[in-house]
Amino acid sequence: MLIDSSNKDAAGIFRIALGIEYKGSRYSGFQRQAFGVPSIQEALEVALTKVAGGHEIALRCAGRTDSLVHASGQVVHFDTSIERSMHSWVMGANANLPADISVTWARRMPAHFDARFSAVARRYRYVIYNDPIRPAHMAEEVTWNHRPLDLERMQEAARYLVGTHDFSAFRAQQCQAKSPIKTVHHLHLLRYGRLIIIDVRANAFLHHMVRNFAGVLMTIGTKERPAIWAQEILESRLRKKGGITAHPYGLYLVGVEYPEEFQMPERFLGPHFLSGLPDCFD
Amino acid sequence: MLIDSSNKDAAGIFRIALGIEYKGSRYSGFQRQAFGVPSIQEALEVALTKVAGGHEIALRCAGRTDSLVHASGQVVHFDTSIERSMHSWVMGANANLPADISVTWARRMPAHFDARFSAVARRYRYVIYNDPIRPAHMAEEVTWNHRPLDLERMQEAARYLVGTHDFSAFRAQQCQAKSPIKTVHHLHLLRYGRLIIIDVRANAFLHHMVRNFAGVLMTIGTKERPAIWAQEILESRLRKKGGITAHPYGLYLVGVEYPEEFQMPERFLGPHFLSGLPDCFD
Repeated sequence: MLIDSSNKDAAGIFRIALGIEYKGSRYSGFQRQAFGVPSIQEALEVALTKVAGGHEIALRCAGRTDSLVHASGQVVHFDTSIERSMHSWVMGANANLPADISVTWARRMPAHFDARFSAVARRYRYVIYNDPIRPAHMAEEVTWNHRPLDLERMQEAARYLVGTHDFSAFRAQQCQAKSPIKTVHHLHLLRYGRLIIIDVRANAFLHHMVRNFAGVLMTIGTKERPAIWAQEILESRLRKKGGITAHPYGLYLVGVEYPEEFQMPERFLGPHFLSGLPDCFD
Repeated sequence: MLIDSSNKDAAGIFRIALGIEYKGSRYSGFQRQAFGVPSIQEALEVALTKVAGGHEIALRCAGRTDSLVHASGQVVHFDTSIERSMHSWVMGANANLPADISVTWARRMPAHFDARFSAVARRYRYVIYNDPIRPAHMAEEVTWNHRPLDLERMQEAARYLVGTHDFSAFRAQQCQAKSPIKTVHHLHLLRYGRLIIIDVRANAFLHHMVRNFAGVLMTIGTKERPAIWAQEILESRLRKKGGITAHPYGLYLVGVEYPEEFQMPERFLGPHFLSGLPDCFD
């Protein structure tokens, strides 16, 4: 997984991609904020700049996760003239990062690779803890729903959301995407013990789209609304019809996909406590 | 699960048992300590005393877990003259407890029930995260081992530890048990994705016994030692032969068993992120 190919390009610049895993609870989100507001980006840039011997590193990510949101498969890239082995970028960064952020792999990339703009699909998992009693474990890493959820109703509702649609009804007001039309490749639901996992893959996501899906699916799961409500919301294209935005706690960016030419490293589909699940499920 | 049978005994005293789940990371262990040192017991007694309208509650637990150790199936009991529904004990306690401790059930018990002395078996799970890269998630809820572990070797070693033995070699110096002879009913190992779970049930455990098992099994899993080493340690009866004591992070008290007459409430075998696993496995 640590592939070392240290030829600089013509300008003497290396482009490096990293796989990133983080627990978002202590951070205001991925993106660098005003001074003193902790972000994943700042923590990574500070650690990588140390590995680069003080030469400043600035990076771009595939998906700018919100405040409190986690990732197991975030991807970033940066440019540097500093020569380090891929192993050194991983181990050096991890030695300088707080315990809730890990670099999982590093890979030399061609200059036209861009963590954000080369991505062809993103995948999220939303983890619900479904029990009458509040979970003492992983309180910041699962979303607690104390009402019994009917998985089959949620699966029925999910089917209305798969495909290419105008997802305006699931879009946060502050969303900066150019178009509300996205393609959802799959939207699976699985029960694993007391956990219910929503697994969704799309070419791209609108702001709060997964949390708005989760909110609607949970409202349908508790039988407050019928499954067809998901389609009614979708067709309305109105955010005000779309119900509540679910908590960020259980949300994980688990993967970003790129064209085959980039030969991205393979890693198990996270978060790690779900790594025993099959990759695809219905 | 919330069974209400509110008849006082002849002396006007109720004996109540509770199921308890906690994340031990912020606590110096279950047992109440000197003033200002946080313990699970103190947090529970403070919360229950509030539910009892200020009448002081003192409780006893089934297993006094160490500093940083977690539980999903701890059992406690207390006596009170205050009449509350079982639902009120659960919900009232949870409303007054910090987010890392939950009461999962409450049940009226006969006066001869004792959470500690009536118990006939305890069950622990030890959760290892096995990957070269440090886990950003659940850092305090799994034990990280970066070296590849050979599950079959660990399973072979575990077989030497099952049965009735003198476990002196796996006993902490400060252990207060009367006898080092205990009966291990099962010692299963399972791989679930990047997690390896040690699941052990015994009539009782010596101090640090599970963590000493885990330390030896991991040393065998990394091939530093052969599987037979577990038997050599056991037969030596010498703690100094017993290798390292594994970290507390991944340790969970998952269950306490009582004679059938007490009709203990049934709850899924935790911790919750493993609640989809079969109850028994090899």
